[in-house]
Amino acid sequence: MYPKNTWYVACTPDEIDGKPLGRQICGEKIVFYRGAGGKVAAVEDFCPHRGAPLSLGFVRDGNLVCGYHGLEMGCDGKVVSMPGQRTRGFPCIGSYAVEERHGFIWVWPGDQALADPAQIPYLEWAESPEWAYGGGLYHINCEYRLMIDNLMDLTHETYVHASSIGQKEIDEAPVTTRVNGEEVITSRYMENIMAPPFWRAALRGNGLADDVPVDRWQVCRFTPPSHVMIEVGVAHAGNGGYDAAPQYKASSIVVDFITPETETSHWYFWGMARNFKPEDKELTATIREGQGKIFNEDREMLELQQANLLRHPERKLLALNIDAGGMQSRRVLEQWMVKENTPEQPA
Amino acid sequence: MYPKNTWYVACTPDEIDGKPLGRQICGEKIVFYRGAGGKVAAVEDFCPHRGAPLSLGFVRDGNLVCGYHGLEMGCDGKVVSMPGQRTRGFPCIGSYAVEERHGFIWVWPGDQALADPAQIPYLEWAESPEWAYGGGLYHINCEYRLMIDNLMDLTHETYVHASSIGQKEIDEAPVTTRVNGEEVITSRYMENIMAPPFWRAALRGNGLADDVPVDRWQVCRFTPPSHVMIEVGVAHAGNGGYDAAPQYKASSIVVDFITPETETSHWYFWGMARNFKPEDKELTATIREGQGKIFNEDREMLELQQANLLRHPERKLLALNIDAGGMQSRRVLEQWMVKENTPEQPA
Amino acid sequence: MYPKNTWYVACTPDEIDGKPLGRQICGEKIVFYRGAGGKVAAVEDFCPHRGAPLSLGFVRDGNLVCGYHGLEMGCDGKVVSMPGQRTRGFPCIGSYAVEERHGFIWVWPGDQALADPAQIPYLEWAESPEWAYGGGLYHINCEYRLMIDNLMDLTHETYVHASSIGQKEIDEAPVTTRVNGEEVITSRYMENIMAPPFWRAALRGNGLADDVPVDRWQVCRFTPPSHVMIEVGVAHAGNGGYDAAPQYKASSIVVDFITPETETSHWYFWGMARNFKPEDKELTATIREGQGKIFNEDREMLELQQANLLRHPERKLLALNIDAGGMQSRRVLEQWMVKENTPEQPA
Repeated sequence: MYPKNTWYVACTPDEIDGKPLGRQICGEKIVFYRGAGGKVAAVEDFCPHRGAPLSLGFVRDGNLVCGYHGLEMGCDGKVVSMPGQRTRGFPCIGSYAVEERHGFIWVWPGDQALADPAQIPYLEWAESPEWAYGGGLYHINCEYRLMIDNLMDLTHETYVHASSIGQKEIDEAPVTTRVNGEEVITSRYMENIMAPPFWRAALRGNGLADDVPVDRWQVCRFTPPSHVMIEVGVAHAGNGGYDAAPQYKASSIVVDFITPETETSHWYFWGMARNFKPEDKELTATIREGQGKIFNEDREMLELQQANLLRHPERKLLALNIDAGGMQSRRVLEQWMVKENTPEQPA
Repeated sequence: MYPKNTWYVACTPDEIDGKPLGRQICGEKIVFYRGAGGKVAAVEDFCPHRGAPLSLGFVRDGNLVCGYHGLEMGCDGKVVSMPGQRTRGFPCIGSYAVEERHGFIWVWPGDQALADPAQIPYLEWAESPEWAYGGGLYHINCEYRLMIDNLMDLTHETYVHASSIGQKEIDEAPVTTRVNGEEVITSRYMENIMAPPFWRAALRGNGLADDVPVDRWQVCRFTPPSHVMIEVGVAHAGNGGYDAAPQYKASSIVVDFITPETETSHWYFWGMARNFKPEDKELTATIREGQGKIFNEDREMLELQQANLLRHPERKLLALNIDAGGMQSRRVLEQWMVKENTPEQPA
Repeated sequence: MYPKNTWYVACTPDEIDGKPLGRQICGEKIVFYRGAGGKVAAVEDFCPHRGAPLSLGFVRDGNLVCGYHGLEMGCDGKVVSMPGQRTRGFPCIGSYAVEERHGFIWVWPGDQALADPAQIPYLEWAESPEWAYGGGLYHINCEYRLMIDNLMDLTHETYVHASSIGQKEIDEAPVTTRVNGEEVITSRYMENIMAPPFWRAALRGNGLADDVPVDRWQVCRFTPPSHVMIEVGVAHAGNGGYDAAPQYKASSIVVDFITPETETSHWYFWGMARNFKPEDKELTATIREGQGKIFNEDREMLELQQANLLRHPERKLLALNIDAGGMQSRRVLEQWMVKENTPEQPA
């Protein structure tokens, strides 16, 4: 259960450096590559000649060449040429709307007639020189909504990430969830607490004392189909918390793009955007490494949760206040699915 | 096909040292842990909040805490508490009767109303200071009855364990099988033979000459659901064999607890109990290592046998005299299954 | 889809040196071994006693002894003996016609009444002292006909084997396919070209200049069920090409025996036969190593092609002129299948 008429992050530019990339997105086997003029392209990973995977081929003069017998495929899924063959009558394969924007390659896996690049979200932190970003990719064997649940309820930090970003006070602070159109926002504010290890390091990295009380916040923003941006940070206590002036705080945005692969697996693009010391590449690498370790702690939990749910499809799970973010996100997705499956009415 | 209204060995105490253990028994996903006062407990490995595996959590004050969002589960499957939540209306999960006895953790995976700890077999060798025990655990991909067959027909020692405990005379000595209530006993006695390598070492370890003829015996005792205790030994020939006085013999009990995991896999708890030099821990370790190697030789045979039987479910196997122990054991199990599947009549 | 009433290469003699070999051929689990007088034998890999795999046993006095409980199986699938048992009434298992010829073990997996050793192809290169042969075995997860396609259309050398035997001129030279009874022959001749690396080395190995233009040829010969012999070579240009005298050329026969394991996997026996320096064992080893690397380059392509075809069974593939060899081979196989599935008419 996932919408297909929407933009998903498919890969990062470095993944198609030099050679094509085969990746399954929303059940579609797709090959991504740089076509004419370096423009990204995406077609079915299936050569119409004999069914070979085009992702094992290479790009020549902007066209994808099948690595089996040399069929040359155009970015539109139409065969361009093949050595010694007249290809005019050859069948086409599917092609996919694809855009390179904000440091990611975005794909529209559904009805291609509906693909509108204007619907790709604008990411301020990816464009402004005042921000730096670092991130990575994990393949996770659970359906993508379990990851949305995970990110819209950070209570789990206390348990899954106890040694880095978790602390007892997360548990104890109530959360508020509100829906703003199709955006779901879950917020949690903790006042006058001691920062956990990850945030102590961030304070020090920012030239701030790490042994004084802080105010801490987590503002999780879901937008469909599966983007979760989380504003996180700490400020020396009593300076306004979330609204404190920069000299009192360390903060950043946790960036999560969650792309369904199959009904029970997904590609998880995680990262962190920060607006302090944006030029410090070493700091970017350090944060990236730390975040990568932390986010990998969720994997076993999510995959075994998925296995449990597959064993017991009849069981109804709880929907507590802490689950409201995930539940509301699922509601938005259900509305999208209804819309996607309803034939358009003539105007 | 396995009875569920009975006690099985689930694990050994060291497996729940410090952290919970998730293990599937008779198709049930169970988490085992030490609850209040160190008493062993077992509940479904499924958090009623969001389906996370409770076995990834930890124990606090005798209750199992879910490692995802902190739900605190009681040993009876009722939720005790959850940070920031009223849990009164939360659904329960299954709990399992579980007992720690004779050096093992025993579980009753079926109808909990019928669980009676008095039905756990008494193991003299586990309680008496005159005995020592060492053993281990293998996970084997075949149904548990193939392992019962294996242990109730030691003819296979000649072939599978040719270099340690096998010898041609096993083949040549007839076996006798008798049924005593629900116990099945298969005996084989060999007289005036030379001992094979394992038993030569045992004789030497016991301070006895290893280069003289011996009488050797194997008395396999099956009791339902799947315990096989095998009295094995050698005595200097002509001193009474099985009944010889201690100064003439080396003997022990091979201990086998066979716990179904699924219809085609099981947990195999193997070990050896001996009543000589019980205080000699180094000897215990040496025997354990040797036995572990020998018992691992059965694995490939059993797993490929299982694959063959799954390919040819229509084929009828032979039931020879050497198979009588396994066949009679299966008969007892079938009676148990009939009883288990027959509704109780009112008195 | 594969004929079963025919001879397939099952293994090479070294694979049954000393111990039996279990291998699945055309869906049949078979154990191959050397019986009485070293004559190769093949029976079902299933002991009629308890279903154990006979391939884990050993051979004694020409009979296969089950490694579980010692049942002694004859080469005809009839039980010979078992320790302590009367075996007269024991059920038989299937046995297979099997022949050792031309350096291979051949098996007839279908109707045993039809097995005629005279139908095993004669391999001149395997018998004549003027030839040397070296080869190997790969297990490939795709149906055997995809490998036939691969070998009957060497256009793929340009792409899959670009750094060794591929060159642009292969693409550009037209192919001719003709059917001669049940033999399918696809030929390609290239004139006055520069040899690719593999053939330059072969020229040098043959004492010939490698920096002059050559004529190159590829003559692929399919015979059912799945043998593909490919005459390949280069000759200094203008000396007759394929028909050039030996002092002008380097040539050999690529040998391919393709044995179905299941509907989607096969055993691929590859090798090269040459009629120059046949006594040079070091050269044989060098060629074998090089060929092994080249032929392994096809594996990923074939296995992902198979996965693509299983995902899209409804898609019709193209049948171009370069595919004619594979298509005609499939046609011959279909005729065989019709014949195999048609009940014999009484004369």
